[in-house]
Amino acid sequence: MKVPSSLDELMAALRCLPGVGPKSAQRMAYHLLQRDQPGAVRLAGALKTALERIRHCEKCNSFSDDMLCELCGSARRDASLLCVVESPADLLMVEQTHSFAGLYFVLAGVLSPLDGVGPKEIHLDRLLKRATDGVVREVVLATNFTAEGEATAHYIGELLGARGLKVTRIARGLPVGGELDHVDAGTLAQAVIERRAV
Amino acid sequence: MKVPSSLDELMAALRCLPGVGPKSAQRMAYHLLQRDQPGAVRLAGALKTALERIRHCEKCNSFSDDMLCELCGSARRDASLLCVVESPADLLMVEQTHSFAGLYFVLAGVLSPLDGVGPKEIHLDRLLKRATDGVVREVVLATNFTAEGEATAHYIGELLGARGLKVTRIARGLPVGGELDHVDAGTLAQAVIERRAV
Repeated sequence: MKVPSSLDELMAALRCLPGVGPKSAQRMAYHLLQRDQPGAVRLAGALKTALERIRHCEKCNSFSDDMLCELCGSARRDASLLCVVESPADLLMVEQTHSFAGLYFVLAGVLSPLDGVGPKEIHLDRLLKRATDGVVREVVLATNFTAEGEATAHYIGELLGARGLKVTRIARGLPVGGELDHVDAGTLAQAVIERRAV
Repeated sequence: MKVPSSLDELMAALRCLPGVGPKSAQRMAYHLLQRDQPGAVRLAGALKTALERIRHCEKCNSFSDDMLCELCGSARRDASLLCVVESPADLLMVEQTHSFAGLYFVLAGVLSPLDGVGPKEIHLDRLLKRATDGVVREVVLATNFTAEGEATAHYIGELLGARGLKVTRIARGLPVGGELDHVDAGTLAQAVIERRAV
């Protein structure tokens, strides 16, 4: 059976959402049209507005509706601490822990030479300028613990360390509440190697 | 942390999708803005187009871009068989089984007196007119096996049976590949009661 073409296109478009396969897309499309047309109107409007208004903060490179994001414009943050993350979503993750009071710098990705992503593409020149402005005392590297994230952290560490800056890396180890026999060998090995005095 | 208001509204709007909670909405919003802005443009457009173009087929009441849906306009369907379902999504489910060659009538819901939904609200007058047009020989009731779906099927059965029409109900029983010790007692009981000659 061929569904109406406008419905078919809606199902196809919904599949651009992460984690949404053909079955979910079908359920979502019918739900919106059968039961929640006001929701569909709202979603269409929210997408349009976000696409028009969202830009990158001139200072930290994260998402913002204005030239400067709320965090960078805040006087209550500790400007001597700079946390480097891979994406705006990662920034939000760190913020939601309420464990970091400093400011951020969002890379536009990670170093990946095979994909043609070098230091210039992820704005390391801007990071270097920001980190050596005289205000920043410590740079906390919070890129992912993937091969690319680690390589990027290492590269930035060398770059900034050479300028005499204190550079730190977020800790690896067991998760909170974690048990030794539920964790993979690599993580446990790192936890042993990076053990700390109590 | 307050995220930019346009991003915040996008996350809120995404929650109108079924099965999407705050965490998924956050992941979806960041995904669209960070990695798939063309996808976001496409989705906004598809929602707008579907909302503008989708209407109900004049004959079967399902979704259609035109006055008559493709199924009702097809000469290859058996017009003497009429399947009654609760929603356009249910119609699609039956169609996807390729087990039914007739036409459909989509109720606008199910009878639910407590919610003020009576025979008029679910277009039973239109169904009665359609079923007694002289072409339809058998009406297959495929409403859900919920209390409301069963009550609606019973009501329609009485209504059409009184006009001498053949009315059938889709079968209850074990699912294909089902095992007795994995099925609930109610389903197994019905399968025993509604057993058929082999």
